[in-house]
Amino acid sequence: MASIDFPQAVIELVSALKKLPGVGPRSAERIAVWMIQHKKANPAILAEALEKAEAQVGSCPSCGFFIDDAGCSVCQASHRDQSLLCVVEQATDVIPMERSGVFEGMYHCLGGKLAPLDNITPDDLRISSLLQRVQASPDTEVILALSADVEGEATANYIDELLSPLDCKVTRIAHGLPAGGGLENADQLTLMRALQGRR
Amino acid sequence: MASIDFPQAVIELVSALKKLPGVGPRSAERIAVWMIQHKKANPAILAEALEKAEAQVGSCPSCGFFIDDAGCSVCQASHRDQSLLCVVEQATDVIPMERSGVFEGMYHCLGGKLAPLDNITPDDLRISSLLQRVQASPDTEVILALSADVEGEATANYIDELLSPLDCKVTRIAHGLPAGGGLENADQLTLMRALQGRR
Repeated sequence: MASIDFPQAVIELVSALKKLPGVGPRSAERIAVWMIQHKKANPAILAEALEKAEAQVGSCPSCGFFIDDAGCSVCQASHRDQSLLCVVEQATDVIPMERSGVFEGMYHCLGGKLAPLDNITPDDLRISSLLQRVQASPDTEVILALSADVEGEATANYIDELLSPLDCKVTRIAHGLPAGGGLENADQLTLMRALQGRR
Repeated sequence: MASIDFPQAVIELVSALKKLPGVGPRSAERIAVWMIQHKKANPAILAEALEKAEAQVGSCPSCGFFIDDAGCSVCQASHRDQSLLCVVEQATDVIPMERSGVFEGMYHCLGGKLAPLDNITPDDLRISSLLQRVQASPDTEVILALSADVEGEATANYIDELLSPLDCKVTRIAHGLPAGGGLENADQLTLMRALQGRR
């Protein structure tokens, strides 16, 4: 005997919601039911926002940041310091940098980091376009702002070597104690790097 | 100087996602970026599912469960035991009952429970339609399956009194130790009810 379940439209909505990152089966059900019961929540607004984002948002061919019809807000920012090029892993890494308000140069998003175990090679990253950008303006200082993990380090080393014949300045962001962090909370590697990076 | 941010379409998507229950600002951003970067995720499928659910899903005028174009799967289920009427708070409460597979009667969803402090009075619940259903078939056993909290108890008492002139059988689901729960984890009230409900 078939037991009673949600109507088909709700089941389909739950299955679409379940695919989102961080949304499990129970959250998906809660969200779906909430949307149906709170007519004021207006699922149409979310549906429209989804379709608009899908249709309009792409990736900048030059720097790799998100672009829409208005073009790339990074590459078009003429008031920014063109002689500083901050290399980050993901396009999303630009946002925390910008929110901190401490950097006013240009960005280059690699689209990931080297990870041979996951079959991510230099060809999978936007490294050749980085090379072209630096070759086009050799006075640029390239700041490598990659993760402080093994893959991030390996990627930074690889780019460093690649850029060394170009005679441009290559720096890396400092690794050390995070702000507000005491010594008792720091792991061995963080402490080692904090000591090595002492000024 | 304006700092770089996501394109407008992404910001709008994040703000729509943030309104969902259990989705905070950071989750909303993660979901939005994930959708844009995983083109295979196909936001259009979610958008379509949302619109379909909004357009098709309503509430059954008789029992209060979700209905779609095909009608109410509870009220139309002719093979179910018509002489058992399980009263639950929310339409969603039907789903765990059905998944447990232990009940094969009909349902009536109140749409909430009495809560004078939140201004939820009998008129806000589907109590008068419950009365009509029971009056129409007085042989029905009404099973009150409401929450084991103060409001749930109050609602059960209220309905119990309301149905008493109708000469129908009114029962309540048992309160006691949950399956797998030891005495050491049970709170005082649970233990008291478990003792009172001993058989």
